Amino acid sequence: MISMKEIGKICGISESTVSKALSGYAGIKPETRDRVREVAQKYGYQPNAMVKCLQTGFSQSVGIACNHFQDLFSGAVMDGIQEVLHEAHYDSYVISWDKLVRSGENLLNRFSRRRVDGLLLLPMEQAPSAAYTTQLYSFPNPVVLVDQFWGSREFDYVGSNNREAMRELVKSLVRQGFRRIGAVMYSRVSSGEERRAGFLDAMIEHNLPVSSASLCEMSCCDGNIPNEEIYRLLSSGERPEVIVCFNDNLAIEVMNTARDIGLRIPEDLAVTGFGDLPFGNMVRPRLTTVDQQAEEIGRKAARLLLDRIRGRGEITRQEILVPAKMILRQSSTYGSTTNK
Amino acid sequence: MISMKEIGKICGISESTVSKALSGYAGIKPETRDRVREVAQKYGYQPNAMVKCLQTGFSQSVGIACNHFQDLFSGAVMDGIQEVLHEAHYDSYVISWDKLVRSGENLLNRFSRRRVDGLLLLPMEQAPSAAYTTQLYSFPNPVVLVDQFWGSREFDYVGSNNREAMRELVKSLVRQGFRRIGAVMYSRVSSGEERRAGFLDAMIEHNLPVSSASLCEMSCCDGNIPNEEIYRLLSSGERPEVIVCFNDNLAIEVMNTARDIGLRIPEDLAVTGFGDLPFGNMVRPRLTTVDQQAEEIGRKAARLLLDRIRGRGEITRQEILVPAKMILRQSSTYGSTTNK
Repeated sequence: MISMKEIGKICGISESTVSKALSGYAGIKPETRDRVREVAQKYGYQPNAMVKCLQTGFSQSVGIACNHFQDLFSGAVMDGIQEVLHEAHYDSYVISWDKLVRSGENLLNRFSRRRVDGLLLLPMEQAPSAAYTTQLYSFPNPVVLVDQFWGSREFDYVGSNNREAMRELVKSLVRQGFRRIGAVMYSRVSSGEERRAGFLDAMIEHNLPVSSASLCEMSCCDGNIPNEEIYRLLSSGERPEVIVCFNDNLAIEVMNTARDIGLRIPEDLAVTGFGDLPFGNMVRPRLTTVDQQAEEIGRKAARLLLDRIRGRGEITRQEILVPAKMILRQSSTYGSTTNK
Repeated sequence: MISMKEIGKICGISESTVSKALSGYAGIKPETRDRVREVAQKYGYQPNAMVKCLQTGFSQSVGIACNHFQDLFSGAVMDGIQEVLHEAHYDSYVISWDKLVRSGENLLNRFSRRRVDGLLLLPMEQAPSAAYTTQLYSFPNPVVLVDQFWGSREFDYVGSNNREAMRELVKSLVRQGFRRIGAVMYSRVSSGEERRAGFLDAMIEHNLPVSSASLCEMSCCDGNIPNEEIYRLLSSGERPEVIVCFNDNLAIEVMNTARDIGLRIPEDLAVTGFGDLPFGNMVRPRLTTVDQQAEEIGRKAARLLLDRIRGRGEITRQEILVPAKMILRQSSTYGSTTNK
């Protein structure tokens, strides 16, 4: 790419005249200005964003801390974020948060050095230590948490209405006629606590029994799940008629375990997931689940961050909950297996 | 975060003395230097990476052009890339390439403005136009293509040994006793062309018949695939005994379509995928596939780019093929459905 110095050589003028011509400085002759701009365009000159940042104090970039990239939910959130940043001509630095934590490096130092105008923090599997959260408070620019929050809820937050959506899902199962409703939950993250609470809300509301035998708490929520717990839930004398799960991964594990012990889905056991990830529609029977609108979560989070950076909008802490909606498919519908 | 000016005030010295002290300039008294460093550390001072870049000409950052993030293969590649960049203390700008293309914006302008030291280009679904590729040649810093290449193969490239791996997969099916072997391919990308060639290599090598009826070419390779083509392949009089697929998504579509018309897998039809994405191990029967070592592809691509940036290694164009390995599971193994 051509430099201002080289443009100057081509036009037979000094680098500083080129700089003035490109920035529209008044004291430059129109012919010179036009010639400089013509050469700049011809040779693909690009202004240095770093110089602009040092001048304005804004880098026109945000930092995105992502736990890992092999997760379709986070991927959809990221697509939504990128859409909004792209429209606003913002660029994004992406950092694998868990790698920093493991190596003891400070997340904020990495982002501070780049002078990002704000931060989007995507879910970590484990809540950070108190020391880590305290560090975050010292970050001078806006921070928006996405999908998960920790403890004190002091940062802006954009996520799903997990509790309400799970409550509605269970209520709709009750309306379908289900009474023995079991749950496979994962409460180590805020979204999991909320879904668990929504499950209990609906059960209590309908005077339906909940016991430790029907509420199974998992220690992880993706691949290679130890399924002894699920096996126990399915082999109990009072086996649930339907099992609602924290997410689609767990739901598919439940379906697999059920089939391994000879249960038909949905005839012997109905199963529901949460998240509406693509494979829920690829397995057979197709999985009843809850669409979290992950891309919309990403878009709303990015918009909120940009508003914060520009000093627009509410001054008080914002919490935006994107409504999640149930998607009824074969895994919870009797007689539906013939319905492709 | 504290500035050099503020550190100067605290220490009762000028900003330029602070700058010299922090950069280890020889003419500064050791007491002053120690005091400045102590204050800088206490208040979390972070050097401005942009100033360093303007001084050194290196931004210690790379650009990653990613097509979209809702793809587990790209996610695994990205994890590998991030691992290496993290270790090298490099940061990465991430740009959604397809969004730029759709909006007619120039990818390189975005990255050039940020003065990234190099570029990693992750797969686009469609090869870019010739004009776009030509633009890429004008980018002054190193470029490494990942997973897919286009036309002239002028850039460094890191990907899978697709042709060889597919050839080996088909040969192993022949050793298992399969003779009528069909294929569901997607040749719009370079990896697809290579896998198709590998399939044909093995078939020709073993004198096995290939016809347009047994080689099905798809127009897309992920969710919501129109499966009339697959249906036709499965309903033909000479139905294949096994179908090898371009990727895991297509393989699962084949399994679903097969079951919809009453075929048992693997008894009536064996199916194989490619990519070893997590859901291949979640469906039943578990999917025989090929592990591409996507994270290793990401690591090798990032290492190659860093070598290029640092002027190390080979001068000639590099092409690194990460060996992909077959993973035998139930979907291609007779009598394996009882084997969990």
